[in-house]
Amino acid sequence: MKSVRTVTALAGAITFGVAGAAYAVDPAPNGIELPQGYKDCRVVGSSHRTDNESLRVIVGNDVAVEAARSGRTNPWPDGAVLGKLVWKDRQDAHWSAATVPGKFVHAEFMIKDAEKHASTGGWGYARWLGNEQKPYGADANFVQECFGCHTPVKSRDYVFTTPAILP
Amino acid sequence: MKSVRTVTALAGAITFGVAGAAYAVDPAPNGIELPQGYKDCRVVGSSHRTDNESLRVIVGNDVAVEAARSGRTNPWPDGAVLGKLVWKDRQDAHWSAATVPGKFVHAEFMIKDAEKHASTGGWGYARWLGNEQKPYGADANFVQECFGCHTPVKSRDYVFTTPAILP
Repeated sequence: MKSVRTVTALAGAITFGVAGAAYAVDPAPNGIELPQGYKDCRVVGSSHRTDNESLRVIVGNDVAVEAARSGRTNPWPDGAVLGKLVWKDRQDAHWSAATVPGKFVHAEFMIKDAEKHASTGGWGYARWLGNEQKPYGADANFVQECFGCHTPVKSRDYVFTTPAILP
Repeated sequence: MKSVRTVTALAGAITFGVAGAAYAVDPAPNGIELPQGYKDCRVVGSSHRTDNESLRVIVGNDVAVEAARSGRTNPWPDGAVLGKLVWKDRQDAHWSAATVPGKFVHAEFMIKDAEKHASTGGWGYARWLGNEQKPYGADANFVQECFGCHTPVKSRDYVFTTPAILP
């Protein structure tokens, strides 16, 4: 059952939440709360993965978007939050050559705090599954899976996403 | 050469612009101005087209996003602006099964005003090409190409995009 609690917005992240709002999604097993207002955030990138047939839009809070647009992404600054919105592939009914978002798979996040998350490369990780927004991971060790997968891009400050060009 | 002019923001569309700001992109041949702040807008959907190898993120102004989230999309309300950000496919260097945004192709828009744009199904169309943001179309008749392509989805108020599920 989901609990209702009070959370504090991320500092400076206007589009990532409202301070003190009641919140109905459980935190990740490592204590990270779902960034409020994540679906109102600005676009950083996009991807389509054929290995697991999913479409993704990568969004960022204000710190992340400003960093992306000014090229300060190696390292990303403390306070940056990157969110990945993931949907299962669906063939568009009206444009057969188009893959579009189907079922919502999950929303996952990287939260930069070099000191707090030093043991995982300076990033805190969290993921919420499906429309139910169920926290991912049996316990706090789930982050080792995230960190392991991102370690091959350590030289990119552990981030796969290259911000998309937007004039 | 680009001219600098003063434009008025779209009514109510906080994330689509700043009233009275100087603007350095020429309007489309039908007089539609590039919606300011379009790249700061919220996500409505995404797509990957294999017929022309392009990734797209569909964004909306506040009117469009509110309509999308409340299911008022047939018809979309007057004032709705949908923007499509389009990039050429690029294979990700660090995840070979991922297609990610490469070269920026164009930003294109549908602007709903049932009365003003009655001759093209209630939508005004415009597109700006590349990083140079060159207006698309030799003259105002370019909209017939847009309208023709969207006519097969007349029953969906001429919109291909189904808003992506976002809990």
